[in-house]
Amino acid sequence: MPVSEETFSPVALATMPQEPQQTDFQLVRVKSTWYRIKKGEALSDGEDKITLSEAKISDTQSTKEQYSDFKPCFLILARGECISDGGISWTIEAPIYFCYKVVETYNILDPSNTTLLWGHITDPQQLELATSSKRKLRRFIVIDEVVDELYGSKVREYFEENNVQHKILALPTTEETKSMDLVLNILQEVQNFSIDRRTEPIIAIGGGVCLDIVGLAASLYRRRTPYIRVPTTLLSYVDASVGAKNGVNFLQCKNKLGGYTPPVASFLDRSFIQSIPRRHISNGLGEILKMALMKHKGLFDLLKTHGKYLLDTKFQSYSGSADRGDAALQTTRIAIETMLEELAPNLWEDDLDRLVDFGHLISPELEMRVLPSLMHGEAVNIDMAFMTYVAHVRGLITTEEKEQIIQCMRGLELPVWHSGCSWPLIKRALMERLKHSGGPPRMPLPTGLGVAEIFNDTSEETLERAYKLWVRDCKTMLEEEPAAL
Amino acid sequence: MPVSEETFSPVALATMPQEPQQTDFQLVRVKSTWYRIKKGEALSDGEDKITLSEAKISDTQSTKEQYSDFKPCFLILARGECISDGGISWTIEAPIYFCYKVVETYNILDPSNTTLLWGHITDPQQLELATSSKRKLRRFIVIDEVVDELYGSKVREYFEENNVQHKILALPTTEETKSMDLVLNILQEVQNFSIDRRTEPIIAIGGGVCLDIVGLAASLYRRRTPYIRVPTTLLSYVDASVGAKNGVNFLQCKNKLGGYTPPVASFLDRSFIQSIPRRHISNGLGEILKMALMKHKGLFDLLKTHGKYLLDTKFQSYSGSADRGDAALQTTRIAIETMLEELAPNLWEDDLDRLVDFGHLISPELEMRVLPSLMHGEAVNIDMAFMTYVAHVRGLITTEEKEQIIQCMRGLELPVWHSGCSWPLIKRALMERLKHSGGPPRMPLPTGLGVAEIFNDTSEETLERAYKLWVRDCKTMLEEEPAAL
Repeated sequence: MPVSEETFSPVALATMPQEPQQTDFQLVRVKSTWYRIKKGEALSDGEDKITLSEAKISDTQSTKEQYSDFKPCFLILARGECISDGGISWTIEAPIYFCYKVVETYNILDPSNTTLLWGHITDPQQLELATSSKRKLRRFIVIDEVVDELYGSKVREYFEENNVQHKILALPTTEETKSMDLVLNILQEVQNFSIDRRTEPIIAIGGGVCLDIVGLAASLYRRRTPYIRVPTTLLSYVDASVGAKNGVNFLQCKNKLGGYTPPVASFLDRSFIQSIPRRHISNGLGEILKMALMKHKGLFDLLKTHGKYLLDTKFQSYSGSADRGDAALQTTRIAIETMLEELAPNLWEDDLDRLVDFGHLISPELEMRVLPSLMHGEAVNIDMAFMTYVAHVRGLITTEEKEQIIQCMRGLELPVWHSGCSWPLIKRALMERLKHSGGPPRMPLPTGLGVAEIFNDTSEETLERAYKLWVRDCKTMLEEEPAAL
Repeated sequence: MPVSEETFSPVALATMPQEPQQTDFQLVRVKSTWYRIKKGEALSDGEDKITLSEAKISDTQSTKEQYSDFKPCFLILARGECISDGGISWTIEAPIYFCYKVVETYNILDPSNTTLLWGHITDPQQLELATSSKRKLRRFIVIDEVVDELYGSKVREYFEENNVQHKILALPTTEETKSMDLVLNILQEVQNFSIDRRTEPIIAIGGGVCLDIVGLAASLYRRRTPYIRVPTTLLSYVDASVGAKNGVNFLQCKNKLGGYTPPVASFLDRSFIQSIPRRHISNGLGEILKMALMKHKGLFDLLKTHGKYLLDTKFQSYSGSADRGDAALQTTRIAIETMLEELAPNLWEDDLDRLVDFGHLISPELEMRVLPSLMHGEAVNIDMAFMTYVAHVRGLITTEEKEQIIQCMRGLELPVWHSGCSWPLIKRALMERLKHSGGPPRMPLPTGLGVAEIFNDTSEETLERAYKLWVRDCKTMLEEEPAAL
């Protein structure tokens, strides 16, 4: 295998050249073995089954002279040449391709609908292999205990009728129980059940908290076990299901621990939403409104026009209401598509400029502080209401646009104010943000209806003026506690 | 922004065509907002600052007719067209680029060596920004308590002299304490210290267990916090430092929980190795020998010729020994480069064909079972010794090659047999492997000295014959317990 030999020629420091040398390598596999080859180097003929990797390794080697003194070395480093005082420095670049599916389905718990069993497999050959296997199917399912009360018997029936050996773990999944403890409980049961990490995805059925916890458990188990998300609330239908994030709360901080491993698939069945309380529908509408305000005027119009209808019909489609088109279908689809547009290019959040952070600057602090009095989408909406005033004070939106937004929020039966949202809390939340973003906090703000930009130059004075106006307009008579300013 | 509007045209199921339609989208950013555009679609002129993402979204929509019956639907699915009974299915593909550095350095704890503070930053602009910042530098350091006894005062001096506000957490990091509990302890301290997740990498100084635990803690904290590895043992120098893996033991199973988030940098200083016991040097030589046997005859020759010298000199370089070249330097560099070749193209282990799994089929079971009597590299070596017999019985290597390998192992003072390695244990370990690999276990085997291939067709009979030969040759008189066959 002559390809690799030359790269390992004995190292003779004494004869090395003065200037640091960088060499870039590609990686090729011949039979079972990977070799480095210099970029552009040809492979000898006759080699069969050669695979080229997208990963790269480069190394830089400096001379002995250069490391007699550290200062000049450091300067060389500043030129980006990775020199380390006479040694070698290797730089490894390796892309990992994440691929997942978000699938609308109907009657997911109908035993004749095989989506839950096979819908995550995209490759036809793998599907063929999986469906024709003689081995008994096995699935481990985590279900929120409230969902279990409502749908548990249907879930059991589904797996029994499909002759699947299964374990159903019903758990309380709320913000209060969203902890590493619960993750470890799940993992202990997974270990007892003994799943095949390659072919037996863990299934999570529940709201966002349930999907987040199971996502973290699965991504930790054997360093990555596939999992499937089945959202049962409107909020998780349009939010948790669409992205890669998972996590748990830690030391009173929301989602402080977690990761970015996406599920293999999310299966969306809107019929679950008919069994959630009206307030939970509003909760989900909060995140949908976020996408509308940030980037889709059409979605905003849908919410403004059909908000009450969507609340009344709990996002179910009725063929009789032709005049409304299918508002529920359109609303959820646009919400998901706009969300996917923003998440897919930034799956691991390397880019800090995120429109989807709208409503999420102050709300984490507020939500955790007043737990359980505000639901997530409600806290997000309160944050958005304040930010709408900030945008207005900055001259980004007109008075009329501001009014339309607040009016729409009220129409969706979302709170536009909370007594816990004091001026010190807002300042603290923004400071916290500042500390963790390595620079001034980026603030997505509407610049019209359905358009937005990201700003990092909002002054404290602007914030304070916006706060006063917000309090004046939105603080209701019902509030008892005065907000300290 | 006309680009995106058309993709959200109202959905009218009744008028949809009979055939499912797949549409592929690219993602472009205009100002702060990401939009889907159909592949190949041109952007309107006049748009400034357009960014194209490598992520892709495709959607597939099926007709209402297709979901009246699930069977045909399922068949369509089998053609790989992601149809879900009348709904939409979105497929998201998003690459994440991992980039990390492995840097040889000398005197890393010399206060004038700035590698530990800045060596992880590659971008010259970022480095300029970081070094010129007025803010006081802050670092959180986790150090193994044994390393702390030896080097703690130097570490403290380093950060004090560089005027870095720091917290040093000394912990017992052994296979027995390698647990999620310890990870959570670290995270609590990290939270108390309050680091900036963007600019203040967590530093781990210790052996492989320490690096693994800290790696997991950092990758969980705020969904990913950069961390730096400073290995202090030979084993972690050539193994844990090079790859992306981290993890903890769980329910008696080795590294059952963990992930694949690489450090931002590993800084390698061979001088730490001079303070570890001779047995620990052998331990590291086990993993080096693995790479030699799998893919580098030159490395094998180095170990065969200089093994005792490397043990005696504890991998330190002496200018006086010109006749030996710099065996320590060459050995570690080749070990790292061969390891990088195999890890970089398969960072998340999506490909199951891994040469680096040599020595790791039976050893996890053995190591955990006899804890703490075998060190990791010792258990790996015992596994490799057995596999060498398997390769011989399969006719892949000659008797002479087999002898040379076993002889080299003995020369490196590594055990080639352990009484815990009974025939039932081997069968159980391979069964466990089978259960989690979704097919027959892949077995890397030497096919000569420094060359190998991966096999999945080793019969039980071959294994049993190899086991008997191995017992005959390698079971020493010192062993008391008989190995049940």
